[in-house]
Amino acid sequence: MPELRKDPLVDRWVIIAAERGRRPTPEPDDLEPAPNNPFTPGHEDRTPPEVFAIRPPGSAPNTPGWSVRVVPNRFPALQVEGQTAPAADGLYDRLNGIGAHEVIIESPRHDVDLCDLSADHVGLVLTAYGERIRDLRRDFRMRYHMVFRNKGRRAGATIRHPHSQLIGTPVIPPVPKAKLAAAREYYRQKERCLFADLIDQERRSGARVVLETAHHLVLAPYASRLPFELVVYPLRQCHDFVELADDEQADLAELLIGVLGKLRDALADPPYQMMLCNAPNTTARLGRPDYWGTLAYDWRWHLEIVPRLEVTAGFETATGLYINPVAPEEAAAYLRDGV
Amino acid sequence: MPELRKDPLVDRWVIIAAERGRRPTPEPDDLEPAPNNPFTPGHEDRTPPEVFAIRPPGSAPNTPGWSVRVVPNRFPALQVEGQTAPAADGLYDRLNGIGAHEVIIESPRHDVDLCDLSADHVGLVLTAYGERIRDLRRDFRMRYHMVFRNKGRRAGATIRHPHSQLIGTPVIPPVPKAKLAAAREYYRQKERCLFADLIDQERRSGARVVLETAHHLVLAPYASRLPFELVVYPLRQCHDFVELADDEQADLAELLIGVLGKLRDALADPPYQMMLCNAPNTTARLGRPDYWGTLAYDWRWHLEIVPRLEVTAGFETATGLYINPVAPEEAAAYLRDGV
Repeated sequence: MPELRKDPLVDRWVIIAAERGRRPTPEPDDLEPAPNNPFTPGHEDRTPPEVFAIRPPGSAPNTPGWSVRVVPNRFPALQVEGQTAPAADGLYDRLNGIGAHEVIIESPRHDVDLCDLSADHVGLVLTAYGERIRDLRRDFRMRYHMVFRNKGRRAGATIRHPHSQLIGTPVIPPVPKAKLAAAREYYRQKERCLFADLIDQERRSGARVVLETAHHLVLAPYASRLPFELVVYPLRQCHDFVELADDEQADLAELLIGVLGKLRDALADPPYQMMLCNAPNTTARLGRPDYWGTLAYDWRWHLEIVPRLEVTAGFETATGLYINPVAPEEAAAYLRDGV
Repeated sequence: MPELRKDPLVDRWVIIAAERGRRPTPEPDDLEPAPNNPFTPGHEDRTPPEVFAIRPPGSAPNTPGWSVRVVPNRFPALQVEGQTAPAADGLYDRLNGIGAHEVIIESPRHDVDLCDLSADHVGLVLTAYGERIRDLRRDFRMRYHMVFRNKGRRAGATIRHPHSQLIGTPVIPPVPKAKLAAAREYYRQKERCLFADLIDQERRSGARVVLETAHHLVLAPYASRLPFELVVYPLRQCHDFVELADDEQADLAELLIGVLGKLRDALADPPYQMMLCNAPNTTARLGRPDYWGTLAYDWRWHLEIVPRLEVTAGFETATGLYINPVAPEEAAAYLRDGV
């Protein structure tokens, strides 16, 4: 069984998951379909049975015809069966690796990226994100759900067919925990929302704004770790991606097609990672909110988009201090104005 | 001028350094000397003038004959001239990018790794680490110094010739800060040293011990982020690498040759990163210890060695929660016993 372990020197959980070591070797980044691509229509029996799909009315589960299909990961980082059993291991802390790890197959086609799909189809992918988070949240053992997509080998993808993944964890991971603590502390000091103040300041300045739509803002963040890192915020205060209204979802789908297409054009089809940073679950453990759950309403959901143009070197690994050779103002100007 | 910026959502500084963007394209990982390798003897005029070298008595600076040579980085992440000028930028925080960025050229030969050098020569490299930290610490603007080496392109190296780097920063970076805070909190609660307790527990268990010498212990850490991650601790409580005694340095040099050679044999010459995690400077800013400096004595210096076998994926980037497919007990057994 996978296991979560905490480093006592840093507030850093890791998942030790020997199952992940048996994954296939990554495919090259070319466009031929791998003959045993498990995500191709007709290969539905090569994945675990689907847990969600968008398919024509009346069509049977695990048969072709779907537009978006969600299945458990064959090489899960965390598993659903069992109890978390948190315990001390001498001065260390551990939990059983309970959680969820699913794959959201975004299209029947293997040779496209998210930005090649229609806005309606991207909307269906976003629907799948929300539906899976909503469903998995009923399991109180899980405290956080993150949807993410790795595009290209250098961004961590092992299968080329366009897909996202969802991992539900029995702990609040370090970075969301830091953001929750920062938002709460800011509110305690100022009785204002950190996310709202940040967005107001960025809109007033404009220097790091890449795009503003009816419902969303795309920024190159002030303290970008990596060149051309972007973040998408909803303009309306909303902690939970699951509460996205229909017009907001349509707006976000159009925006993603535009922004991901622009990154592809501007940076020669870079490997990238996209991460949906949602609020933690408000109900956890014994069916009542725990401490971190009560902070969820201070959150605003956001999507991080991080091209992986450079390798993260030893200095960053050991210090957490990133060295970024491209100022976010330059990245924003280039993506916004092409200069 | 480079700039340090802090993300208000996470306690995470980044260095925005446009100068770094002008670095040469990384060399391929083969063994032919690049014709304009600036680190080759005879090319001393292609680097900034040396700040330290181990060379025969009477030989002139910036001429061949050296064994180890330290020069400022031509593409520095931080620069020496100027004032830090910490300031608010609306709700953000910023500093000028003041600091040091040096290159420690470990050998006149381009075609070796650290573990191919003699123990005496590795000892000279360690001497250079200590001497440079000692010298740079006299500049009170700098609060932390990290020595690190990136081996192989996938670990972030852009030049093949064996070298380490040293960066001195005007802030305590996030990871050292977290470790200092953890060690202090542990002491406050228990009146015992966290590092000592951790090392005691590991020696009693033995499951994650790779090697123990007269003065040092090599572990696969309990919460290893990445496969075959290792850490070297001194057995004697010592916060500051600069205080290494001669016999301890000789012991460490032998150990590094053994461990790095074993990693190369066991993992087919993997790219790796090696980081010297030393205590922060105890004297800073106005010439008197600041808060973090007073915590330095709770630290124990350690060397992290992290093979970079896999790409860090989006989930890790956004959560800080690593997924490691190799249990540290397995990694330790494999390196210790070959099984």
